[in-house]
Amino acid sequence: MDKVYSESLKLHKEARGKIEIASKVPLNNNQDLSLAYTPGVAEPCREIYKNKASVYEYTSKWSTVAVITDGSAVLGLGNIGAEAALPVMEGKAILFKEFGGVDAIPVCLSSQDTEEIIKAITIISPTFGGINLEDISAPRCFTIETRLLETLSIPVFHDDQHGTAVVVLAALINALKLLAKKIEDIKIVINGAGSAGIAIVKFLYYSGARKMLLCDRSGIIYQGRKENMNFAKEEIQKYLSPSNSGTLIDAMREADVFIGVSGPDTVSEEMIRVMNKGAVVFALSNPVPEIMPEKAKNAGAVIVGTGRSDMENQINNLLAFPGIFRGAFDVRAKKITEKMKLAASYAIANYVSENKLSADYIIPSALDKNVAKKVSESVASAWIE
Amino acid sequence: MDKVYSESLKLHKEARGKIEIASKVPLNNNQDLSLAYTPGVAEPCREIYKNKASVYEYTSKWSTVAVITDGSAVLGLGNIGAEAALPVMEGKAILFKEFGGVDAIPVCLSSQDTEEIIKAITIISPTFGGINLEDISAPRCFTIETRLLETLSIPVFHDDQHGTAVVVLAALINALKLLAKKIEDIKIVINGAGSAGIAIVKFLYYSGARKMLLCDRSGIIYQGRKENMNFAKEEIQKYLSPSNSGTLIDAMREADVFIGVSGPDTVSEEMIRVMNKGAVVFALSNPVPEIMPEKAKNAGAVIVGTGRSDMENQINNLLAFPGIFRGAFDVRAKKITEKMKLAASYAIANYVSENKLSADYIIPSALDKNVAKKVSESVASAWIE
Repeated sequence: MDKVYSESLKLHKEARGKIEIASKVPLNNNQDLSLAYTPGVAEPCREIYKNKASVYEYTSKWSTVAVITDGSAVLGLGNIGAEAALPVMEGKAILFKEFGGVDAIPVCLSSQDTEEIIKAITIISPTFGGINLEDISAPRCFTIETRLLETLSIPVFHDDQHGTAVVVLAALINALKLLAKKIEDIKIVINGAGSAGIAIVKFLYYSGARKMLLCDRSGIIYQGRKENMNFAKEEIQKYLSPSNSGTLIDAMREADVFIGVSGPDTVSEEMIRVMNKGAVVFALSNPVPEIMPEKAKNAGAVIVGTGRSDMENQINNLLAFPGIFRGAFDVRAKKITEKMKLAASYAIANYVSENKLSADYIIPSALDKNVAKKVSESVASAWIE
Repeated sequence: MDKVYSESLKLHKEARGKIEIASKVPLNNNQDLSLAYTPGVAEPCREIYKNKASVYEYTSKWSTVAVITDGSAVLGLGNIGAEAALPVMEGKAILFKEFGGVDAIPVCLSSQDTEEIIKAITIISPTFGGINLEDISAPRCFTIETRLLETLSIPVFHDDQHGTAVVVLAALINALKLLAKKIEDIKIVINGAGSAGIAIVKFLYYSGARKMLLCDRSGIIYQGRKENMNFAKEEIQKYLSPSNSGTLIDAMREADVFIGVSGPDTVSEEMIRVMNKGAVVFALSNPVPEIMPEKAKNAGAVIVGTGRSDMENQINNLLAFPGIFRGAFDVRAKKITEKMKLAASYAIANYVSENKLSADYIIPSALDKNVAKKVSESVASAWIE
């Protein structure tokens, strides 16, 4: 692990940042200059002034997303602030381009005040075709997203929530296919009630799941719990099964699926042993999973996924966000609906052909650039419908 | 003129915007991904968290400028708003890259409220190595710039003001060289009291000019004038010669230099005739100058400059802003000082070798990409001193 860190530091230092701006038009002579800039540029300006929607025809807005963070919940690093979050946002930007042909611009905010963030994003929005929120801590991220969705008429998408939920469902669809189970019938335990955990519960419910328990550091989240609560944990309870208080192992008894979006080494073999036969374990804490795949399998899990590229079944947002934005942009969708996200999950799941589907291949490789194309087509169709 | 407009519209439509994002690092396999993104990216994040200044080493901040407008004073088009201003900002962005190797990101703001703009720019500033304000109407632009300069520790530069002032001084230096006059001795009339006019007065004063009159639509700006005033026009009077009320032609009597940053056809041959012998006329309204060069010369002007590329002596900001930001970025200057701007003016002026200097060649071609290099070196040296 030390080696990947030192090499990454070297790469960042040598490249001095990972993104740059490129021109799509020539600038070699007076003629070029008169068309791309003054005096010719006045004409597209006038056209857009007459018809605001034509900004999608004459500028890069149609394909440009802002990748916005306040640096409050970065990777496994926590609240490291705007500047320290920038390498992650630049990384996200190049993934957007490389996998989805989407032009992404990092915007790291110096404020962590919810109202200030909403205001700033609203004010800078005309440049962008969409807003990708990133690494903003819960429950503030829910407020920011909800409020922006109310006021902006471009897609607003908090990837930590929805990107994660989309790939989790994709993996789950294929796991259930292998096990011949139905999402309606299975018991699912989610550990971690941050942005990803909350969004997974909502999205799995939308997709048909009806037996879910959500845990956090204080154990099972149940009606009437007092400690360590917030408005998001209160609101999510309508999607959860009724429960008494209990710890994670209590929740996991007779569960069919465990989804961890919590922290390293939070799940023991004993916890896996109390699950139902044919247990599915998605241990997505990164880089150190909730439980290592080998240990989970020793304890009875039959299908295991993690967030890591060096293990089987990598459940990585990269399979979702480039294609989702590409698809939304291609049809100029005003938002990214539940239906579009569901279409993305099925596109990812169906990318694994039935004859190749197996316990250690339930989800395509994150590096397969053709996945985004399939996702974008499905997402675009779902909007048009 | 119609042709350049229709061709520009076509170019914008075909290219669908003029800028895109490009990756500076490879993304072809798991190894690439682990260095540019997770898990490796955590290391530069940690380094920047420990030492915030290292954000200049590990990210693109060191070479990235935000080109920010509220669309309130765009080209000759006026207050056309955020979306319609975007083609101009994208044009500026590709000029920054092509001429200065600076990565510029357009940010068009949906608010024209001074306080909201200041707040939004402050909040998004961590991503950027500098802020280039663009096409923001006077006198709001002065407030916005001043306040940002007080709070941000990165260069903030309103190009309509300072870029224009820098190239005007460059042209003036060479004109005076040809005419063997000194800036201290000459009478200068500036027409137009918007952002450019105000900044030109301040900067020429800094450079030694002591006999200046400033006019606007209401004529000469003088102590005690009541109509059509604002705080910027009040404050600028300390740099101007005392005067009674009068029209533009009153101001131009016995002037040595006229600088127009006003509007088309605002200057007559009669006005040129009342100037001193050996008159210098910079008619910078674009695309239609205050007076056409031929008419000005017929009336006695000996050196004429405009903003147009199809005429002699094109006085174009493009000679200044890419090199100024490149130079400031190369030495990580915290601001762009008067001294740095003066160095830029002299670098541009001195680029025209004495044996080539003539009445119709007082300033380098705006398309000469070597000018920015000279400017950046001079600007960088001026900061270090």
